[in-house]
Amino acid sequence: MTGAAGFLGSHTVDRLLADGHEVIGIDNCITGRRQFLERACASPRFQFILGDLFDYTTVSEVCPGVDAVFHLAAHSNLRDGAEFPRRDLDQNVIVTWNVLEAMRRHGVGTLVYASTASLYGATTLVPTPEIARLPDQTTLLCASKLAAEAFITAYAHTYGLRALLLRPATIVGERQSQGHLFHFCRQLHHHPGHLDVPGHPALRRGYLDVVDCVDAMLLALSHATAPVEIFNVGALSHHSLADAIAWTTSELQLDPVIHYHPPPAIAGSAVPTLHLDCSKLTNLGWRPQTSPETAVRRAVRYLTANPWLLAAGC
Amino acid sequence: MTGAAGFLGSHTVDRLLADGHEVIGIDNCITGRRQFLERACASPRFQFILGDLFDYTTVSEVCPGVDAVFHLAAHSNLRDGAEFPRRDLDQNVIVTWNVLEAMRRHGVGTLVYASTASLYGATTLVPTPEIARLPDQTTLLCASKLAAEAFITAYAHTYGLRALLLRPATIVGERQSQGHLFHFCRQLHHHPGHLDVPGHPALRRGYLDVVDCVDAMLLALSHATAPVEIFNVGALSHHSLADAIAWTTSELQLDPVIHYHPPPAIAGSAVPTLHLDCSKLTNLGWRPQTSPETAVRRAVRYLTANPWLLAAGC
Repeated sequence: MTGAAGFLGSHTVDRLLADGHEVIGIDNCITGRRQFLERACASPRFQFILGDLFDYTTVSEVCPGVDAVFHLAAHSNLRDGAEFPRRDLDQNVIVTWNVLEAMRRHGVGTLVYASTASLYGATTLVPTPEIARLPDQTTLLCASKLAAEAFITAYAHTYGLRALLLRPATIVGERQSQGHLFHFCRQLHHHPGHLDVPGHPALRRGYLDVVDCVDAMLLALSHATAPVEIFNVGALSHHSLADAIAWTTSELQLDPVIHYHPPPAIAGSAVPTLHLDCSKLTNLGWRPQTSPETAVRRAVRYLTANPWLLAAGC
Repeated sequence: MTGAAGFLGSHTVDRLLADGHEVIGIDNCITGRRQFLERACASPRFQFILGDLFDYTTVSEVCPGVDAVFHLAAHSNLRDGAEFPRRDLDQNVIVTWNVLEAMRRHGVGTLVYASTASLYGATTLVPTPEIARLPDQTTLLCASKLAAEAFITAYAHTYGLRALLLRPATIVGERQSQGHLFHFCRQLHHHPGHLDVPGHPALRRGYLDVVDCVDAMLLALSHATAPVEIFNVGALSHHSLADAIAWTTSELQLDPVIHYHPPPAIAGSAVPTLHLDCSKLTNLGWRPQTSPETAVRRAVRYLTANPWLLAAGC
C-alpha cells in the first residue's frame, strides 16, 4: 500500500487488515499522518516503511512476495502544481513508473490505482460514465494523473499486469486532511464567525464517505477481469456547496457570515457539477452505506476531535 | 529545434532556414544523423548543439531569445519500449517537461510538438478526426506521447503557452531512417531476393512525403489561435501495404519472393487501416504536393543513394 498513511490509504489498510490480509504500507509522511495508522500498527500483520517512492530501490525492495499493490500515494494539491511544476511529474508519473517497473521485475500481478474523476474536467455528459471522452487536461495535476493511467494501461497490455483504475470524486470522512471541507473547517477553527468560500454556492458535488469508497474499491477488484478496468467511485446523488456548508456549520454549532467569491484562477478548479455515473459499481451490488450529510458531518466531527490536523494542515 | 538531426527535424530546419529564420538545432545524434544537417550547417543562420535534452541545463541554456520551440525529438521505437521500459518515460515525458519548463522560465511563448497518430490506436472512426475519443494506450510509446500531450496542454492552460500538437501518420521521404519502408529497404539491401513482411498485405496506410508534412506544420502554426491546437497530418488517400511494397521493389528494380507473416506480438503495432481526417488542414488550403507513390519512391531512392544509412540502421 503506497500512501498508506494518507486519507484513503489508511482506511484501506484498516479494511484489508480486518479482512485478514497482510499489509506492507509505505509513506513518506509529507501529507500522510502516522497517527492514521495507529490502529493498523497494533496488528502483527501490518508493517510500515517510512520511505519515498521516488527512490526506485525503496519500491523494488518491498515487492518480493507481494500479491497486489494498492498505489494510492499521490501529489494531489492543484495549487502546488502551478507553483512547483515538477512535483506532479515526479510524484505522480515517475513514482507510478517506479511502482510499475518494480511490479514487473518482481512478478507482482495486480495493481489498484487511485486516479481522479477530475480527468472528466468540465464534461457536459452528466452523470459522467467511465467511457466519457476526456477533455484537454488543463492542470498539471490532471495531466500527471492521465499520464499515470496511460503508463499503467501500457504496462498492463505489454507485460500482462492486471490493473484497476479508480476515478473517485469528492471523498469525505474521518482523517480527511485536504479538500474544500477541510479548508472550511480550518477557517472556522481559527475564525468561527466568518467563512470565505472560493466558489459559487450552487456548485454541486457528490459527497461519498471514504469507507464506502474502500468498499467500492475492493468489490471492483474482486470482479475485475479485463487487463485494465476503470471504475468511477462517487456518491449516487449530488448536493450544492451551500448544503455541504450548512451541514458543516450545523455540526460545528456555528452560524458564521458566509462570503462566497470567485475561486482563484487555477484552471479546472471550478467544474459546476461533478456527478459520476457509477452504474458499473451499482451493477455489482454496491450501494453507499452512509448518506452524504452523515459523511460530511463525520468528516467535520473528526476534525473537531483532532484539532492538531487543522493546525498543521497540508 | 529539438531532434534537429532527425528525419522530420532536419527537413523542418531546412525549410525554416529557407524562409529566412535563425535556427538553433539540438540533437543527441543517437538516432539523428549529422549528415542530414549538411545543407543547414552551410547557413550562417544555423547553429547546432550536440546535447541531450534529458539534461535540463542543456535545454534551458538555449532558450533565452528564442521565439518558438519545435520539439521534434522523441524516442519512437515501439519494440525498444518493451525491452527498455524507462526509455519512453525519459525521452518522451521527462524531456518534454524539461522543454516546457525551460520555455516557461525564459518566456518562450510558442511550442510545436510532434505527437503521433498512433494515439488513435485501432479506432473504428475512419477517417479519424482530431476529436476522436482516444482508446486505451497499449504501448509505452503511445502512453508517453499521450503524457507529453497532456503536460503540454496543462502548461499551455496554466502558464499561457501557445501549443501546436501535430499527430502525423506514416511520413516517408528522403532521410527516412526508420519505419516499415526503411526496414524493407534494409532487408532487400542485404538479401535482394527475399522480403519478410511482418503484416498483412491488405493493411492500409496513407503515405505522406515529409516535405508536405513540414508544409502542413508551418501552415497550421500560422493559423493556430487557441492555446492548444491539435492537427492531424497525413495523406489524403490510403494504400495497401502490398502497393507500397510494389512501389519499393519497382524502384529498386527487384522482384523478390515476398513472405507475409503475422507481426510480432507488440500490442498496437498492427492497426488495419490508419487514415486520418485532415479536414482541419485542408480547410486552411493545404494539399500534399507529392503523391503517395512518388513519396515512397523518393524514400527508397534516397536509401539506395545513401547505403550507409541501411548499414547502420536504427
